[in-house]
Amino acid sequence: MAVQHALKTSRSEDFSAWYQEVITGSDLAENSNVRGCMVIKPYGYAIWERMQQILDDKFKELGHTNAYFPMFIPVDLFEREAEHVAGFAKEMAIVTHHRLEQRDGKLLPAGELETPLAVRPTSELIIGESMAKWAKSYRDLPILINQWCNVVRWEMRTRMFLRTAEFLWQEGHTAHETESEARKEAIQMHEVYKWFICDVLKLFGISGKKPEYDKFAGAVDTYTVEAMMQDGKALQAATSHYLGQNFAKAVGIEFQGRDGKLQHAHTTSWGLSTRIIGGLIMTHSDDDGLNLPALVAPYHVVIIPVIKNDNSHNIMEYCNKIKSMLPDSIRGFIDTKEYSPQNKKWNYVRKGIPFILEIGSKEVEAGSACVTKRLSLEKKNMPLDEFVASIERMLVDHDEFLQQRNSAFCNSKIAHISSYDELSEFFKSGNTGFVKAKWAGGSSNLEKLDELAVSIRCIPTEQSGTIGKCILTDAQTTIDAIFAKSY
Amino acid sequence: MAVQHALKTSRSEDFSAWYQEVITGSDLAENSNVRGCMVIKPYGYAIWERMQQILDDKFKELGHTNAYFPMFIPVDLFEREAEHVAGFAKEMAIVTHHRLEQRDGKLLPAGELETPLAVRPTSELIIGESMAKWAKSYRDLPILINQWCNVVRWEMRTRMFLRTAEFLWQEGHTAHETESEARKEAIQMHEVYKWFICDVLKLFGISGKKPEYDKFAGAVDTYTVEAMMQDGKALQAATSHYLGQNFAKAVGIEFQGRDGKLQHAHTTSWGLSTRIIGGLIMTHSDDDGLNLPALVAPYHVVIIPVIKNDNSHNIMEYCNKIKSMLPDSIRGFIDTKEYSPQNKKWNYVRKGIPFILEIGSKEVEAGSACVTKRLSLEKKNMPLDEFVASIERMLVDHDEFLQQRNSAFCNSKIAHISSYDELSEFFKSGNTGFVKAKWAGGSSNLEKLDELAVSIRCIPTEQSGTIGKCILTDAQTTIDAIFAKSY
Repeated sequence: MAVQHALKTSRSEDFSAWYQEVITGSDLAENSNVRGCMVIKPYGYAIWERMQQILDDKFKELGHTNAYFPMFIPVDLFEREAEHVAGFAKEMAIVTHHRLEQRDGKLLPAGELETPLAVRPTSELIIGESMAKWAKSYRDLPILINQWCNVVRWEMRTRMFLRTAEFLWQEGHTAHETESEARKEAIQMHEVYKWFICDVLKLFGISGKKPEYDKFAGAVDTYTVEAMMQDGKALQAATSHYLGQNFAKAVGIEFQGRDGKLQHAHTTSWGLSTRIIGGLIMTHSDDDGLNLPALVAPYHVVIIPVIKNDNSHNIMEYCNKIKSMLPDSIRGFIDTKEYSPQNKKWNYVRKGIPFILEIGSKEVEAGSACVTKRLSLEKKNMPLDEFVASIERMLVDHDEFLQQRNSAFCNSKIAHISSYDELSEFFKSGNTGFVKAKWAGGSSNLEKLDELAVSIRCIPTEQSGTIGKCILTDAQTTIDAIFAKSY
Repeated sequence: MAVQHALKTSRSEDFSAWYQEVITGSDLAENSNVRGCMVIKPYGYAIWERMQQILDDKFKELGHTNAYFPMFIPVDLFEREAEHVAGFAKEMAIVTHHRLEQRDGKLLPAGELETPLAVRPTSELIIGESMAKWAKSYRDLPILINQWCNVVRWEMRTRMFLRTAEFLWQEGHTAHETESEARKEAIQMHEVYKWFICDVLKLFGISGKKPEYDKFAGAVDTYTVEAMMQDGKALQAATSHYLGQNFAKAVGIEFQGRDGKLQHAHTTSWGLSTRIIGGLIMTHSDDDGLNLPALVAPYHVVIIPVIKNDNSHNIMEYCNKIKSMLPDSIRGFIDTKEYSPQNKKWNYVRKGIPFILEIGSKEVEAGSACVTKRLSLEKKNMPLDEFVASIERMLVDHDEFLQQRNSAFCNSKIAHISSYDELSEFFKSGNTGFVKAKWAGGSSNLEKLDELAVSIRCIPTEQSGTIGKCILTDAQTTIDAIFAKSY
C-alpha cells in the first residue's frame, strides 16, 4: 500500500513541482505580481534572519563592520571596469526618470535623468569609490566592510529563491595592502562560507576554485562552494573573489605604501544570498515538506492544544507549563489559532518543525506529551519530564540525522570518470550527481559539455595529485575537476 | 579667552554647517557621487544597527513578524489609490529598461519594459496585494508585518540623514477585522515610537495628530512625534497611520467576517527611518561633536594606549586588563592604530564616546586610569578599581545629563501665543522653538503660515481643554496646536 504524504507531488515524480510545493506548503514565500520578484513570507524571512545573525556574528568576530552604500550606480561608473560591465550589462534594471506625470489619462515616466542609474547587481564599483576616499595611507588598510542589502539581476527565467530579479544578500568588500593579505582574506571568507553551508546548514558542499571562464566578472580568482541537491544538480552556494588590483585601478583605490610610494590596493568581495534557502530546501526536504537544521529553524517545538468539550482551561494551562519548562536554547510556541488540531499537525509537518506536540485531556491527566518527530513522523507518548530532559539531545540527534542522511546520499552520487565518452554515457543514461574527472584547464572543447548541459563546477581544493588524461583534450594533467548539471 | 572646540564651526555661528561638521567629524556618513544618495559609514551604521535591534525586539514582542516584499511597484498598481499616487508621483525613481547596450561607443538603456516600475517610496500597495491573498476569513486576521528595507523618494534638495533620495527604514503594515482594532494598533505603534524617541534616544518630542492637510497620502489619521532640534526647528521623527479601508479597497483585502459577510479590512502603517539619526545629531551634539545615549552608542569606553619609549608591552597588557574588567553591559575597545594619542582623543570626542581613557606609564604604575568624560571634557585620574566599579553608574549619569540638558533647553523654547500677530512677531524677531496656540482646524488662511515659513506640526495628544480664538480664523476653539519651522 502506498504511503500517504503531506505533499501531492513526490521528489521522484517531478522534482521541480515538488520544490514549489515544499515552498507553498511550508509558507516560505510566494510569487508577487511584479515580474520575477518574490515575496519572502514571515516563516521564510525568519529563516533568513537566523542565517543573517549567524553570519553577521562571524563577520564581526573577524573584524568586519557593516555599512550602507547607494543602491543606484551611475551607468558611466560601470564602464570603468570592462569585464565587469560586460558580465552584468544584460541583466540590470535601469532607472531613467525621477517622477510620474499624468498624460492622456495615464501615468507616464517624466523628469528624464541626464545619466541613467543602474540598480546595483553588486557593489564593487560604488563601494570602491568610497574606499578610494578612505585609503590614503597603508595605515588606513585593511578596510573590511560588509553590507546587507537587496540587489537586482534581471533574470528572464525565474524560480523562487534560486533565481529572482531582486534578491537579498550580504556582500563583503575589503581592501588590502598586499596581494597575499587580500588572497588570505578571500580564502578565509570562502572558508567561513564552507563552514556555514556544511556545518551550520548541513548541506553537502565541495569547495574549490571556479574555472577561468566562469569567474566573477572582473575577478582574478573566484572560490566557490558547490552544493549537491537531491536531484544531483549543483547549486553555487556562495562565492568569494580575489579581485587583484582590477577594481582598485578602475576606481582609484590608491594609497601611500610603507615605502612612501603610491600603489593600488588589492581587493576582495564575497557574497551569500537568499538563494541558499533554495539550497536548504532542495537538500533536506522530503515528500512531506521542509526539514530544517536546528540553528536556522525558527521553532524547534510546536505545542498544539487538542481541545474537545470544555476541558480547554486545563489543556491551555498544561501547554503553557510545557512551554515554560523548555530549556532556553529551545524555541517553542503554542498554536492557539482557530483551526483543527489535525490540520495544524500537518501544517507543521510541511513547515519542518522538528518536534510537534499534541496535547489533549489524556496528556494532561497522564502528565505526558504526545510527540511527533518530524523526520520519522513517528508519534510517541512521553512523560513530560522525560521530554523536557531529553529535548536538547533529541534536537542534536535530529541534526545528526539530517547531516548523515544527506552526506550518505551525496557521497553515493559522486562518480569517478576518465573519458568524455564515459561522461556522456553517464549523463545520457539518466544518472545524476557530481562527476570527478581530469581537466587540463583552458577553453578547448567546452562546447562538448554544453551538448550534455553539463558544466565544470569547480576545481576542488582537495586534489588527488594523480596524473591522467583531460577528458576534453586528452592532455596529461593532474587537475581534478567537478562536472555536473547545475541550477 | 575663547574656548577651543573640536569642531571649526559652532552651533550659534552656522547651525547647518555645524551639522555637517558633526557628521564628518564623527565619521557617520559621507555624500556619494550618486545624486542625493549618501554612504552610511561603519560608525553611523553601527548606531542604526542598535536602533534596529531595539525596535525589532519591541515589534516582535508585540506580535509582529518581519517579511520582505518586492522593491519594484508596477506603475499601474500605484494608480489604484488616487490620493496615494498624487502624494508620491513627483518623487519616484522609475525603472524603464532591463539592460544596457553598447551603441555608438556608449552604454545605453535597452530592453524597454512594457509597464514601468517605480522603486518603492513606501509599500502599502505592494504589501496590500499580498495581504489580499492571505486574508480570506476573520481567522486570518490580524496580519502584523514589518519590513526593514531601503526606499526612494526623489528629493531635489538633499541633506545627509534628513533628506536623501534613498534611505533606510522600517515600515510596519497591519490588517485588522475592525476599525477599533486598527486604530488601537496605529496608536500603540505611535506610542512605541514615542517611547523609542523620547526614552531611548532622549529626544524631546511632542506627540499628536497631523492636521488633515498634512496626513500621509491615503491615510485617515496620521500620528506623529515632532521632535525639537537645538535650532528650535521641528523634525517629524516617526509617523503611524490609520488607513481606514482606503488601501484595503484599492487592492482588495476582503475577508469573510464573523457574520459570514465579505468585508474590507482596516489597515495601518507606521515607519521610522535613518532620518532619526539626523534628529539624534541635532539634539545632543555640541561644539565638540557628537553625543550619544548609552543604548545606541556603539561604544561606551575607548582605551587609548599612550606609548613612549619602550614601555609598550606593559601598557598594552594593562589596557587589555582594563577591557577585560569592564562589566558585560559596557562596550569598550582599545584603539591600537598607528596615530598620535592626542589625535585619537579628539577623534573620540568628536565621535561622542562617553568615556575616553588615556593609559600611559603613569597610569600603569599607579594602577589608575586617566578618564575624560565626553560631556564635560573634564579629565580625572581615577583608581582603576573605582573606575570599573562606577562605570555603569557614570553611564547612567551621562544619559540623565543628556536628557535633562535637552529637556530643559526644549521646555524653555515653548511659547504660548494667542494671536497671529504675536506669532508673526515671535518668528520675525528671530525667536526659535515651538509655539503652542489655538487652531480651529480646516484649511483657511494657511497661507499666512507659509509667509512665516512656519507650519502646524501637530495637534498634541495632551490638550489643555481651554477655549480661545483660532490664531488663523478667530473662530472659537478648544484645540491646541503646535506651530514651528521644520526640517
